[in-house]
Amino acid sequence: MKFSIERSALLRAVAQAQSVVERRNTIPILANVLIEAEGAAVSFRATDLDIEVVDKAVAQVERAGATTVSAVTLHEIVRKLPDGALVTLTDEAPHHRLTVDAGRSNFSLATLPKEDFPVMATSEYSSNFSAKAPVLRRLFDKSKFAISTEETRYYLNGVYMHVADGDGGKKLRCVATDGHRLARIDADLPEGAETLPGVIVPRKTVGELRKLLDDDDVEIAVSVSETKVRFATPEITLTSKVIDGTFPDYTRVIPTGNTRQLEVDASDFAKAVDRVATVSSERSRAVKLSLDEDRLVLSVNAPDAGAAEEELAVAYGDERLEIGFNAKYLLEIASQVDRENAVFLFNSAGDPTLMREGNDTSAVYVVMPMRV
Amino acid sequence: MKFSIERSALLRAVAQAQSVVERRNTIPILANVLIEAEGAAVSFRATDLDIEVVDKAVAQVERAGATTVSAVTLHEIVRKLPDGALVTLTDEAPHHRLTVDAGRSNFSLATLPKEDFPVMATSEYSSNFSAKAPVLRRLFDKSKFAISTEETRYYLNGVYMHVADGDGGKKLRCVATDGHRLARIDADLPEGAETLPGVIVPRKTVGELRKLLDDDDVEIAVSVSETKVRFATPEITLTSKVIDGTFPDYTRVIPTGNTRQLEVDASDFAKAVDRVATVSSERSRAVKLSLDEDRLVLSVNAPDAGAAEEELAVAYGDERLEIGFNAKYLLEIASQVDRENAVFLFNSAGDPTLMREGNDTSAVYVVMPMRV
Repeated sequence: MKFSIERSALLRAVAQAQSVVERRNTIPILANVLIEAEGAAVSFRATDLDIEVVDKAVAQVERAGATTVSAVTLHEIVRKLPDGALVTLTDEAPHHRLTVDAGRSNFSLATLPKEDFPVMATSEYSSNFSAKAPVLRRLFDKSKFAISTEETRYYLNGVYMHVADGDGGKKLRCVATDGHRLARIDADLPEGAETLPGVIVPRKTVGELRKLLDDDDVEIAVSVSETKVRFATPEITLTSKVIDGTFPDYTRVIPTGNTRQLEVDASDFAKAVDRVATVSSERSRAVKLSLDEDRLVLSVNAPDAGAAEEELAVAYGDERLEIGFNAKYLLEIASQVDRENAVFLFNSAGDPTLMREGNDTSAVYVVMPMRV
Repeated sequence: MKFSIERSALLRAVAQAQSVVERRNTIPILANVLIEAEGAAVSFRATDLDIEVVDKAVAQVERAGATTVSAVTLHEIVRKLPDGALVTLTDEAPHHRLTVDAGRSNFSLATLPKEDFPVMATSEYSSNFSAKAPVLRRLFDKSKFAISTEETRYYLNGVYMHVADGDGGKKLRCVATDGHRLARIDADLPEGAETLPGVIVPRKTVGELRKLLDDDDVEIAVSVSETKVRFATPEITLTSKVIDGTFPDYTRVIPTGNTRQLEVDASDFAKAVDRVATVSSERSRAVKLSLDEDRLVLSVNAPDAGAAEEELAVAYGDERLEIGFNAKYLLEIASQVDRENAVFLFNSAGDPTLMREGNDTSAVYVVMPMRV
């Protein structure tokens, strides 16, 4: 194998690969990237056995072939090469070495046999559709904060992507929850997604997927089976196993009868919550919301350290209410609001509270109260 | 005590104080800042028993007095207040509380009695002089990387500031070393510094001092005794114990007979070292320098991972030489060069190597070689 490639193209391809590689693993070849050169393109493949990423780049291929080399080392080298350099990679198969040449720099890296590289088995996908990057970005960005980190509740360690009945018909929906808060985000159902089986996309996959979604104009091809999900741009293909579990019936958690409505500027609200929470250094800081006619008082009382109180002018017309929340949860939910005001719908101090942006019901958040 | 102060002035004063406070300490009052209001000024004092910082700020003092309150909490609160806010601090002595009011935010923080706050004893300083911020910045910035972190060699855990014979007479000199590398930086001797006793300024003090030196126009008043050193701007006074030990005779370590001279672009050199070091993930990565007529080859050989080589065009006219160094040490030294070329002076592969910037002898670095 021998090919030459522009440094920035190589860097982009290797960057995505090395981020999938687990830093600590006991199987040496999993630290490597499989490089395959053929025709006018080179592909870079990395896996942690659950996620596989393949990144294709255009290159001047002089001799087709394949080998594997440390993903992190190759990435570090390419990152440190000067911008604009032309990089030549040559497989010195008899010596189990890959040479990397760029200008006056020469590197020789240990290789492992390409035959040992675990390529993920191909699947039959029961649903194939495509979506613009901003659509998927919104679905996952607004839901991922609620993913559970509890390993025992493995079925909550991801975002549940499925088809659901939403406002105005069938929707493509992402839901995440950790039992304390929940996010439910809807998007218009893309053509071909009607047969989508509900899948739980693991946290790490959501993170890797995010890197494919920065460009607003990119169309993402999504393929889903019962066991796998695939997201692909023209250059990058990300395939991931989905979590083998049943996502709980979240609909029971979303309150429908909450009528006490609070409308507040989300940014002012978040800043005020952040400030009053300062006085308590405890992890689960409770912030009390005291609601009265168009008036919200946020307060925290930490007997040892002190107390804090802040008043906000809000729109609230219902009867007096005092309700407590974990400060971190309130902050995270308020920071999901990127336009209009945050609208909270309360029932009583002991019931889950609902939040949405203005009158938009395509993104709904639920947060459990805390006793204060 | 009651006073009002502009948020940004309060933030600056509290920021310096809270950075001195140790995050983990067993004496509760050491987490606090002593606030003293009198006349038209308020002072904020914090200490870790080795370093004391006092920051004065102009305020509208309504009632003189003093109290102590958590430095970190106060800092966090002030940081989160909106810019431009007027903040009023009131000591509610009977309730052991300090209230902080700004607009619609109200905080009440637990206080500890001001009498319990350990104010550092005043000293007689045997030497007083003043220096422009950039002079001290250069002395400490260029030497601090060589400070030892070995606790058993406590006398190397700081920068040795003293008066020494340099090029063209007496100099104010800072030296730091960890036994592997050494930095010796000279500045013109300020008036009044002739009687300066040599003192070892601890690492943490060097870090805190650095925050006083950002403004090029500030004149720093320096006071030194056998046991303490003080640096003061008009607003901030930083007093620190010095390390109670004897700095070793560093002059024996600085080679004087090295004649083989290599001149190289410091930035190109540093980048090349960084690149070739990539192939080895070991902590003490050895880079080999192979010198020949106007040619330098940097190489690293890590049998398991691979090898790397890079050639640089340099000015070198002496006989062939091969010498190895710790990559990190080479990088750190090369990054001290901020103008002109790096000039290395070698003797043999086993002897310490000297480096300076061009022909400037006011900043000299020594690095021990490694066997390669």
